[in-house]
Amino acid sequence: MKKSNGNARSRAPESVAGNGLLHRRALLGRGIAIAGALGTGAAATGAAAEAVKDEAWSLEFGGITPVLQTPSPFEKPVTRTLSNPNGEFRNSHARTPHHLLGGAITPNSHHFSINHAGIPNIDPAKHKLVVHGMVRQPLEFSLESLSRYPLVTRMAFVECAGNSAPMFSNEPVQLTAQGLHGLVSCSEWTGVRLSTLLDEAGIDPKGKWVVAEGADAHFLDRSIPVKKAYDDALVAIYQNGERLMPGNGYPMRLLVPGYQGNMNVKFLRRLKVVDQPAMTFFESKTYSQILPGGRTWRFHFLMEVKSFITSPSMGQTLKAPGYHAISGVAYSGTGRISKVMVSADGGKSWGEAALQGPVHEKAFTRFVMPWKWDGGPAVLQSRAWDEAGNAQPLRADFVAERGQTKEPITNPLAFPNQHYNSLTSWGIGANGEIKHVYA
Amino acid sequence: MKKSNGNARSRAPESVAGNGLLHRRALLGRGIAIAGALGTGAAATGAAAEAVKDEAWSLEFGGITPVLQTPSPFEKPVTRTLSNPNGEFRNSHARTPHHLLGGAITPNSHHFSINHAGIPNIDPAKHKLVVHGMVRQPLEFSLESLSRYPLVTRMAFVECAGNSAPMFSNEPVQLTAQGLHGLVSCSEWTGVRLSTLLDEAGIDPKGKWVVAEGADAHFLDRSIPVKKAYDDALVAIYQNGERLMPGNGYPMRLLVPGYQGNMNVKFLRRLKVVDQPAMTFFESKTYSQILPGGRTWRFHFLMEVKSFITSPSMGQTLKAPGYHAISGVAYSGTGRISKVMVSADGGKSWGEAALQGPVHEKAFTRFVMPWKWDGGPAVLQSRAWDEAGNAQPLRADFVAERGQTKEPITNPLAFPNQHYNSLTSWGIGANGEIKHVYA
Repeated sequence: MKKSNGNARSRAPESVAGNGLLHRRALLGRGIAIAGALGTGAAATGAAAEAVKDEAWSLEFGGITPVLQTPSPFEKPVTRTLSNPNGEFRNSHARTPHHLLGGAITPNSHHFSINHAGIPNIDPAKHKLVVHGMVRQPLEFSLESLSRYPLVTRMAFVECAGNSAPMFSNEPVQLTAQGLHGLVSCSEWTGVRLSTLLDEAGIDPKGKWVVAEGADAHFLDRSIPVKKAYDDALVAIYQNGERLMPGNGYPMRLLVPGYQGNMNVKFLRRLKVVDQPAMTFFESKTYSQILPGGRTWRFHFLMEVKSFITSPSMGQTLKAPGYHAISGVAYSGTGRISKVMVSADGGKSWGEAALQGPVHEKAFTRFVMPWKWDGGPAVLQSRAWDEAGNAQPLRADFVAERGQTKEPITNPLAFPNQHYNSLTSWGIGANGEIKHVYA
Repeated sequence: MKKSNGNARSRAPESVAGNGLLHRRALLGRGIAIAGALGTGAAATGAAAEAVKDEAWSLEFGGITPVLQTPSPFEKPVTRTLSNPNGEFRNSHARTPHHLLGGAITPNSHHFSINHAGIPNIDPAKHKLVVHGMVRQPLEFSLESLSRYPLVTRMAFVECAGNSAPMFSNEPVQLTAQGLHGLVSCSEWTGVRLSTLLDEAGIDPKGKWVVAEGADAHFLDRSIPVKKAYDDALVAIYQNGERLMPGNGYPMRLLVPGYQGNMNVKFLRRLKVVDQPAMTFFESKTYSQILPGGRTWRFHFLMEVKSFITSPSMGQTLKAPGYHAISGVAYSGTGRISKVMVSADGGKSWGEAALQGPVHEKAFTRFVMPWKWDGGPAVLQSRAWDEAGNAQPLRADFVAERGQTKEPITNPLAFPNQHYNSLTSWGIGANGEIKHVYA
């Protein structure tokens, strides 16, 4: 970082791709003018004092400390968007505001949630989980008895199979990162390994599937391969340190890291070991994958490698040319993210982004890339790779395999298909406005 | 785990220390009766159906999905405890309910907070951070301009120097893990490296300290060594994925991982580079360390290796003999936790606990240990080591060096001294009641 090439440009950040992308480690102490300069020399002290004025909050005793902290009133717009705000008799979606968050964890208050029959108000003292079917000894568990097992903790994203569905439109729907991708979130989950419960019940070697059923009025049920149950599935009872929230399955939910969101059955009340998949409504109809030509895949459990830029992104406006950070999230149901490439010229050239913090498997990894915007048009894209070598597909390849609508989607709640994991492109105009484009 | 030693006890969990401690990997599929057994054979299906009754929430459409999720109403007691609930003209403490949480992250709602002059309601559009003093070019930053830097993300605990102060009492004060240790919490923090801002301002090589000042009415200020500023300090603007909450420094705070809580200056508005520590009120008086004999250490920045058991712990009652998980948190300002040992007999014998999940440096690591309680008296303790080889001190050694009160502390808000990092002991009676004891 401190090498000098002996000319006047030695302190300029190193360019790595077209349209202003800079080396991921190239940055600071290099005269990058993001901060505002104050006076120099003797004038500096005065200018510094002048810059920081005593506002009311520096002069008066502040507010009362509450038992539970809540966000600043200045953060009011940072909320989930709702598909069913009046609780009508249909399903409800609440989308995570990715364009307004930072880091890798989604706060519980902002974690996405989809409920098909409203949010049940479950009394944990009355809730039971039963393990039965092809087992030696059927068992029942309460929240209290699960809490007496040695628990394990892991980071994991959960993503609805229908997340990003508007991107099956043949023309780009003008939605923010929240509107397009708000049905994925990432948390620290703590719970009991599913294998522990199955071992205790004594699973029959002929049992190959576990049918998980929820306690809400929709009785959502899905068949989970026993192999996955023994790999990394949990019955989760804490999320980001506290008990699950009602919209995310309180008091207990199944967690099958990297698999379709709805397979992480909420309000979990039954686990039945069987010898073949139950072909429930939710796996044979609702969450089936339709391919061009009308055939469907029988199952499509895995949420594949994906990324999207959260900043700058639609809904934001670049105020002035100069230095910005391009930042977003990447994740893969297969394992760890190994690489994220970023383009500022619609895919003509690419530079490698920095991956922030510890990279956990099957969890959000935040990436960041410094960028000098020249004030002209730009198209920002990200593309992720996972440790198994899977690459996020380019849009042309993805559409060729998976199809798109013949007419533009006008209803952003339409789910023409599922498992969109191709690129997202943000088009930046000369006025700094950002649109959703295809490139 | 599947080895057989050829006798009838082959499925019994392996004991590793006295009074029922089991090997950290010894557990399940071994007939451990935590779950309730249901009928077998033909009776099982009926018993399983019987166990899971359709309660109201399984029969009726549920509640409306809110824009921001909140905990279940059944989780109401999971709150911070307050030292100043009416906002009187003095400082306010809010303590994390460790005995009711799981995992490693503290939710923002439950993160501890101490404010000396109430909680300021800061408008981020008017808040400025100035870097000045011994720099080439004084600079000012807004929340918006900080957001344009490539941010970094890390896990870190923050602990008040006065956390656990009641344990300087010569007799054990009857407080829960929240009452004793509630002034430490752990979050994912996202922000700009302090070194980036100092480099951009051009720090004078003679500048050895940075005086950080907050914008609340108390103007809390602390001197931070430049070495620490360049090591791992951040100006944090996100906590657990969202903007900081007001009690934790909104809109920006200093993060000096592993150092005393108050050095992580909240509402950060000035960073002044100087050549010697400012000896502010907060570093020369409030947060000075008094040693037996009346001398003080000039500075005591580092929060040293520590652990405590959160479950079972005071405030909980063991309902019946049998299997339980002993669980708690461990952390060190020096680096990663390398080992946690647990005792069930007041320190006579020790077994090694399992460390959960990824172990991050200067962050909470949750440990867990299976235990078979025989229904008799037990004294539970944990003791942590960090990767630098530092061991959490035994109480006798700690008291010999750091002292204790002559009379029992009766006011749990008394802070007779700081930096308590010795063991915590929970005494379990034959009735399952748990008390705070010294052992």
